[in-house]
Amino acid sequence: MFVLPKLSVNGDRLNEHIDRLAKVGRQPSGSICRLAFTSEILQARYLIQQWMNEAGMVTRTDAAGNLIGTYEGKVKGAPVLATGSHIDTVPSGGRFDGVLGVLAGIEVARSLHANDVRLNHPIEVIAFTDEENTMIGCQAMAGTVLADQPERYRAVNGQSIQDCLDMIGGNWDTILTARRSRADMAAFVELHVEQGAVLERSKMEIGVVQGVVGIRRKAITIVGEANHAGTTPMDMRRDAMVAAAHVVLAVQQMALRMPTQPVATVGYLTVQPNAVNIVPGRVELSVDIRDLSKECLDTMVQQLEVELQAIATQTDTQIETRPLLCVEPTLAADAVQDAIASVCTDLGLSQCSMPSRAGHDALEIGRITDMGMIFVPSQAGVSHSEEEYTSPEQCTQGANVLLHTLIKLDELYSAN
Amino acid sequence: MFVLPKLSVNGDRLNEHIDRLAKVGRQPSGSICRLAFTSEILQARYLIQQWMNEAGMVTRTDAAGNLIGTYEGKVKGAPVLATGSHIDTVPSGGRFDGVLGVLAGIEVARSLHANDVRLNHPIEVIAFTDEENTMIGCQAMAGTVLADQPERYRAVNGQSIQDCLDMIGGNWDTILTARRSRADMAAFVELHVEQGAVLERSKMEIGVVQGVVGIRRKAITIVGEANHAGTTPMDMRRDAMVAAAHVVLAVQQMALRMPTQPVATVGYLTVQPNAVNIVPGRVELSVDIRDLSKECLDTMVQQLEVELQAIATQTDTQIETRPLLCVEPTLAADAVQDAIASVCTDLGLSQCSMPSRAGHDALEIGRITDMGMIFVPSQAGVSHSEEEYTSPEQCTQGANVLLHTLIKLDELYSAN
Repeated sequence: MFVLPKLSVNGDRLNEHIDRLAKVGRQPSGSICRLAFTSEILQARYLIQQWMNEAGMVTRTDAAGNLIGTYEGKVKGAPVLATGSHIDTVPSGGRFDGVLGVLAGIEVARSLHANDVRLNHPIEVIAFTDEENTMIGCQAMAGTVLADQPERYRAVNGQSIQDCLDMIGGNWDTILTARRSRADMAAFVELHVEQGAVLERSKMEIGVVQGVVGIRRKAITIVGEANHAGTTPMDMRRDAMVAAAHVVLAVQQMALRMPTQPVATVGYLTVQPNAVNIVPGRVELSVDIRDLSKECLDTMVQQLEVELQAIATQTDTQIETRPLLCVEPTLAADAVQDAIASVCTDLGLSQCSMPSRAGHDALEIGRITDMGMIFVPSQAGVSHSEEEYTSPEQCTQGANVLLHTLIKLDELYSAN
Repeated sequence: MFVLPKLSVNGDRLNEHIDRLAKVGRQPSGSICRLAFTSEILQARYLIQQWMNEAGMVTRTDAAGNLIGTYEGKVKGAPVLATGSHIDTVPSGGRFDGVLGVLAGIEVARSLHANDVRLNHPIEVIAFTDEENTMIGCQAMAGTVLADQPERYRAVNGQSIQDCLDMIGGNWDTILTARRSRADMAAFVELHVEQGAVLERSKMEIGVVQGVVGIRRKAITIVGEANHAGTTPMDMRRDAMVAAAHVVLAVQQMALRMPTQPVATVGYLTVQPNAVNIVPGRVELSVDIRDLSKECLDTMVQQLEVELQAIATQTDTQIETRPLLCVEPTLAADAVQDAIASVCTDLGLSQCSMPSRAGHDALEIGRITDMGMIFVPSQAGVSHSEEEYTSPEQCTQGANVLLHTLIKLDELYSAN
C-alpha cells in the first residue's frame, strides 16, 4: 500500500473542468444559470458523462435522473464508496457550489485509473438531480421522496416532475427503484465549498463537517390594529410592528443563549398597511432556525412559542404560527470524520470541525449510510453569486483530501 | 344679552345637511371620495354656497379657492370671528371629518339669522381648500404657502395647482392676496370630530383642544450585509432587521419616557432581500413623532440620533436618516380654550383638555391669530373610513358649543 500516499489528483485538469463547466449557463453578469431540467443541464450532463468515461467509469442514470459513474473495485459484490454533489445552480449561481464535488469525484477516479490503482470497493461518483430546488435526486436515493405526491416536486418553471424526469432520462413511475441502502453503499463523502466564512476567518484549509443541520421554519402572523399614527395615544395602541420587533430580538437572543451555537433568522417581514402615518395593523414574518441537534431545534421551537405568547400579551396583539419546513439534522459518521481529519494531518493541511448550516445532498444520503463532508474555504463566505470564489489551490487540496479519504475508507470498510 | 344663552342650533337641519353632503362622492362601499379639484367638490361647493346664502351670509372665493361666507356684524370695520373646516375627503373618507365644522358654522350663522341676532363682529365660515392633501387653502390664509414653488402643490391626480385653482374659482397668480392677519381675523374656532378614541374612552362629550401637534418625520436606512441564513454564524452577522427591531423599540420607549405624552410610530418598513433564508442586508423605515411641544420634538429627534448611533455600533450596521417632514406645533389661545370650557359648563356638557394629534386647518390659521378647536367623540376612534361615526346628538352638541363659544368670544374681543 506504500504507493498510495504519493497519489494526487491532477489539479490543473480539475480546474480546467471547473472553468469549462462554468461556460454552460453563464450570464452576462458572470453568474451562472443552470437550472435542473433545462437545455443547460443537458449540456452539462453530456460533459460530465464524457469526463466520467475518460476516467474509466461506466455511467448510468437512475429513475430520479441521478447521473452515476462507477469505477469498478477489486472485490466482486462489494458495496460502493460513493461521492458526488450536484451540477444544477440557483438562478444566479456561482462556479463552485456543487460542481466542485462532482468534478473532484471524477478527478479522483481518473487519478486512480491513470495510476492503475483499483480499490477493494467500487467508487461511485453521483451528480444528484436538482439539489437547488426539489432535492429529488438525493431524496429518491435516501427513500424519503413522496412518491404519491408528484405535485410537490414541480420545477421552477412550473413543469411537472414527470416531464422533468423524462427530459433527463429518469422516470417518475419507477422512482422508488432509485432507493439505495447501506448494503450497496458503504459510505458517502461529499466535497463542497463552505458557503460561509468560518474557514476563511479561522485561516483553516479544510473543514471536517460534523453533520448537516436540521431546519425548523415558521411563518408568523401578528395581528394588531391599524390606527392613525397621530390620534392614537401610545397606551391605546395594538402595534403589530412593535410586537414584530420583540419577536425579531427574541429569535436572535434565543439563538445566542443556546450552547450548540444554532443560527436563527428573521429574513422575511412585511407590514400592513405600511404607511408612514398609520400604526401597523398586521405583520407577517418568517423564522428560520438551524442546528445540528434535534433536541436544540425542538427546545428552540418550544421556547419560541412561549416567547410569542408573552409578546402577544405584552403588546395586546394576536400571534399565530404556521410550520413552513421541518428538516431533521443528519450527523456525519465518526469513522468518516476521523478519516478526513487524519488525511488532513497526513497531507499537512490545517483543519477544524464544523457543522454544515446549508443543506446538501449529504443531508439525505446520511439517512441511509455513513456520511461525511469535506469543506474548502469560500472567499468572504459568498455563495449563490457570481462572486463565489475558491482558489484553484484550495479546490485541488479538497480533491486530494477526498482522494485519500476514499482510500482510507476503502481500507477501513475492507477490514470490517 | 339675557336671550343669548337660550339660543341653540337646529340639530335636525344640521344632521340633514351632513346626510345630504354624504351623497356627494359616495362609493359603493359607503365611504366617500370627494377629492379637492374634482366635479364632486364642485357639487359640494354649490350646496355649501346655497346653504350659506340661506343662512344670511354673503359668499366669496379667495385666490386659494377657499369658499367664505360672511354673516355681517354690528360694528363697522371690526375684524371677523372665523370658523370652518374643509369639505374635501381622503380617497376613502368618512361623512364627518371636516364636513361637521363647515356645516356647524353655517348652522350657527343660520341660528343667529333666524333669531335676528347680530354680534359685534362679523362671523366668517370658511370651507378651506384641499385640507387632505396640499393644505393650500389654510396655508395661503396663514401666509405659509410657497408661492414660488407651485410644483409642490400638485393634485392627487397630478394636475397642476394653477389648473386646480382655476377650476374652483381661485387664482395661483394672486395666491398671496389670500393672506389674512389678526387685524382682520380676531380669532378662529374649528369644530371637528376627534378621529381618536380619547373622548369615547374617557366618556367625555367635548374635547377642548390645547393645540395641534407638530410633526417630525424621518426616513431611516439601515445597511448591514445580506448573507446566507444558514452558513453565517450569529456573531458574524450584520443583520439590518435586528438593527431595525432595536430602532422600532427605541422609538416606542422614547415616546413613553417623555412627560408630554408624545406619540411616535414606525409605520413603514421594508426589508431587502426579504427572503426566508437570507440575513437581511437593508431595511428602510419611517419614524413619525408628534407632540404639542416644540422642545419635546427637538429633544426626541436628538435622542433618536444618539440611539441610532448606538444601535449602529451594537449591530455593526450603518444607519442614515433623512428628514421627510417638519411641521411646528400650534398652541390654542388660552382665551379661546377658556371660552370653550366655560361654554361646556354652561351647557352642562362634560369636557376635557387634549391635544389634537392630527393635522387640521387650525394648525395653520393658529399661526396668525387666536385659535381654538372643539372636538366631539369619534366612535371607536375610527376616521378616514366609511365606519367613521359621530351621533346626531354629538354633532348637535358640538355645534351648540361652537355657537356659544363665538358669542362668548364676541363679548370678550368687544371688551378688549
